[in-house]
Formats: sequence, structure tokens, C-alpha cells
Amino acid sequence: MTLDSRWFSEAPPGIDAAFSLRIKEKLHEEQTPYQFIEIFDTETFGKLMVIDGSIMLTSRDNFLYHEMMSHPVIFSHPNPKRVLIIGGGDCGTLSEVLKHRTVEQVWQIDIDEAVTRLSEIHFPELCQHNGDSRAQLRFEDGIKWIQEAEPASIDIIIVDSTDPVGPAEGLFTEAFFRDCYRALHADGILVQQSESPLLHLPLLQRMHHDMRKAGFADTQSLYYPQPVYPSGWWSATMASKSNPLNGFREEDARQKAFKTRYYNIDTHKAARAQPEFCKEAGLG
Amino acid sequence: MTLDSRWFSEAPPGIDAAFSLRIKEKLHEEQTPYQFIEIFDTETFGKLMVIDGSIMLTSRDNFLYHEMMSHPVIFSHPNPKRVLIIGGGDCGTLSEVLKHRTVEQVWQIDIDEAVTRLSEIHFPELCQHNGDSRAQLRFEDGIKWIQEAEPASIDIIIVDSTDPVGPAEGLFTEAFFRDCYRALHADGILVQQSESPLLHLPLLQRMHHDMRKAGFADTQSLYYPQPVYPSGWWSATMASKSNPLNGFREEDARQKAFKTRYYNIDTHKAARAQPEFCKEAGLG
Repeated sequence: MTLDSRWFSEAPPGIDAAFSLRIKEKLHEEQTPYQFIEIFDTETFGKLMVIDGSIMLTSRDNFLYHEMMSHPVIFSHPNPKRVLIIGGGDCGTLSEVLKHRTVEQVWQIDIDEAVTRLSEIHFPELCQHNGDSRAQLRFEDGIKWIQEAEPASIDIIIVDSTDPVGPAEGLFTEAFFRDCYRALHADGILVQQSESPLLHLPLLQRMHHDMRKAGFADTQSLYYPQPVYPSGWWSATMASKSNPLNGFREEDARQKAFKTRYYNIDTHKAARAQPEFCKEAGLG
Repeated sequence: MTLDSRWFSEAPPGIDAAFSLRIKEKLHEEQTPYQFIEIFDTETFGKLMVIDGSIMLTSRDNFLYHEMMSHPVIFSHPNPKRVLIIGGGDCGTLSEVLKHRTVEQVWQIDIDEAVTRLSEIHFPELCQHNGDSRAQLRFEDGIKWIQEAEPASIDIIIVDSTDPVGPAEGLFTEAFFRDCYRALHADGILVQQSESPLLHLPLLQRMHHDMRKAGFADTQSLYYPQPVYPSGWWSATMASKSNPLNGFREEDARQKAFKTRYYNIDTHKAARAQPEFCKEAGLG
């Protein structure tokens, strides 16, 4: 069949596979100093945010990505108190991080304030805790912020960015990983969204290589479904400053005092399973 | 962006989400007595088979589905010798099943011979072992076949079907599950493709319910990525005649003498992990 103008389609260059959602109406569009943002109401996925033509999130399935970008890394750290989110302007990751009562301070550093303001309007369920006294939302360049961060001052860095083109390109470099390494405390862990295992395997390989070259002692990719991203299968890659990434606080995860929709101790373990072709590609 | 006529799109009714692949050329189309089959050459996913407008498989990613429809159920059975595949005319599941040297006999019962003949031409990598002396390919109605099967004569039934509309509709019924139950040996296990956890949760719930009502002692859904199917996230549901589905032959899986691209002991365990919302929906 042919998709008419009532559909929004994302067809990333070079991928030649597209994902589309049927649209009720476009609610907003805006060219910010950094990017072009569109908000749609869809037929069956709730609200949809698109940046520079790429799907960022929908109401229906963002819980998968946001839970898997936050809970596994937090439960992998022995005592996470200070968390930095780079990107994440929709506040979905922030909202999950704040569920951890051990966390004392969270900085969310997104270059584009418009993302957060639009999320407050169209994804209010993700922004309910933006006023938490532990949260600091700043609209600055995350790359510069991390360069200037006090050494060894952060326990967890979550890079919740767009694809490695445009404003996010500098987040996928050895220089950036080196700055993260410096800013992390000895037990610190970096986690970064790392695209689709099926479609972007060379990017994943390069990230592991560059993270280790930047000094990280151990790296590990996590895998989870994310239907509205290319291929519907997504990954996050963790890099630990000094400790091996060989487990997580299982008992704490089992007894977590908050509600999730995808994450639990079993799906955490599942995300750590390396598919055979990923093992062969050295993702470990 | 708008997808022009060089794209093939699948937009299942009621889902309002579509997946598309960019096409180099259409290689074949054919109306059989049962369904309309198309074969395309795509830009980046290799060959593509479409039946009645639904994507069946591509060269690039069918390993995910075929490995996860076969190895988990086979390693969940204590001593699998006789395997029945209902559907599966592309021979991808058959090809994985035959990798198990313990398997003595495999029947592949697909109603439409054209699927197999076209697979032999366009997906020869899946058909290399069709001549194996343990394999019997028959082109008959699987529902009728199972009704007439000798009671307790089969160890594993794999239902590798299209969506529950058209010819496959009768495969998603309590009556069919009852026939499978009768045909299975006491240790027997049925596994059936069970659509997307995100998009088809009520179908999954109904399958569990109907399988148990048909007499099966235990049921369990497995989850895995399948990028070209709706949402990119897929499931298979197992039903065991008498034994609990609480583990699998881990040591045999670890020492498997054949190559896979996704499946291994870790991804097997990962597939068994129930996401929180699936647990809440009673999928167990």
C-alpha cells in the first residue's frame, strides 16, 4: 500500500527502511536555534515528538527507552547519588531517575529549552517531577558542561541524545568520552544511547573502542525493544570507570519501591544478554 | 517525508503504524489458491517475501525469528525426536530444527506449496537442507493434519504461521490447541508465533487462556526482536502438555554444535524474561 499525507514517516538516510505513524493532526512546529521540532497527535501512539525529521518519542512506547536508559545503569552503580543527564530534554529519563530515593542530585543539561517547554505541554506525564528539589534543569551545551565539570564529581552520566548527526555528533567521540571519564567518580558509570544493533553495528563497535581508549575499564551494551526507533530494536552502551560491569544490585532492583512498565530484575538481566552476532562483533 | 512508489509499506489494519522497505525491483508475484505472494529485491534488507500485503521475511533479519521459533522450544524439551512445523513454508524454521542432531523426524506442513518453491529460488540459504532424510515437506492443511495425527505421537509442534486472519485464523483457536494437545506426547511442547507484545497484548492473553483451557499444564511467552514485523518486537508462546516450563537444557544449549546468529544460552534466558506489563497482563 501507499501511505498518504495522513502519515508521518521517518526514513533515515542510508537505512532504506522506514517507520510511519498515522497522524490525526499536527499540533505544533517550531524552528529553534538548534533544530526543527514538530508535535503530532497520532491515531494510536498518542502524542509524537519529531526533531529534524527523526522520531524522538511517543506517549505509547517511550516507557521502554526511558526505563532502560535509567534503571539498569543506576542499579549497576554501588551508591549513585549524583546523576547527570546530557540531552533528555523531554524529561522522561529525569522522571525515571528521580524514582530512586538514593539519588540526591540530578542535572539535566539539554541545549534546547524548547524541547522541555513542549514536553511540559504535550507529555506532562514525563514532567510531573521537574520541580523536585533534587532536579536541576539547565539549557546549555552538554559537551561544554562536562568539560567544565569538577573532576570525579558525578556518579552516573546518562547521554540521552538524538542520532549522531547535528547537535549530538560531538557526543559520539573519544574526546567526549574522555571528558566524561574525568568528570566521573572512581565508581562512576557512563551510559549512552547507542542506536540499533541490527542497523548500526559499526557505530556500536566504535563506541566500545573509543570508550576503552578514553580510559574506561569496562564497557557493555544493553538491548531492548523501542518500536518507534529504526528497526524497533535499540541499545544503550555502558562504560565503567574502574569496576567490571559484571552484575548489578539485584536485591535492590527486586525490592524497588516504584512502578515500572518494562523494567524489572528479569528484563534487566535480559538486556545484558549479548546476541551471538554482537559477541562476534566484540561488543561484550 | 513521503514515501514514493519505490517503497513497499505494510500498514496492518487498526494498528496505524507502518513499516516500509525501499525496493530495487519486484521479482515475482503470484496468486495461489490460498494467497497472493510477492517477492521483492530491497535496497538494504536483501530479498523480501510478502503474503497478502504482510511482510513474511527478509534475507537480512529472518534469522531472529527462525532461531527463536526453534531453539528455545527444542532446548526446553527433555528429548525431542519428532517435530512438526505447521506453516513455515519458507523452510527457515525447518533449517534451524534440523541443526539438532537429536531430532529424528521433522514434518513441515504448509498449505501452500508455492511458498516453498519461491523460497527455494529466492531464499536458497533457508532451503539447503530440505533434502535431509529426516525432513518431510507436505503441502496440506495443517489443521486437518493435526486432527488426524496419531495421539501422543509428536514431541514438539511449532506453529510458524501468518497473522491470525485468512488461512491462519483457525490456528489461533482453542479447538486447534486441543488437537495439538492430543497429538503431543506427554512431554510435548507447542510453540506458536504470537504477534507483538506492544500491539497485540489481548491476543497473547487469549492464547494463554485458550491453551490452558485446551488442557496444557503450563504456558509461557518468549520475547525477541524482529525488525520487519509490526513494532519490531515479537513473541512466541509455548504451551507444555504436562511439565512446567521452568527451565531448559542449559548445558546442551551451551555446548550446541551448530552456529547461530542471535540465539545462545543468554538470549534464550533473555527471551524468557517477562516485561512488567506482560506480567500484569497475566502472560506468566
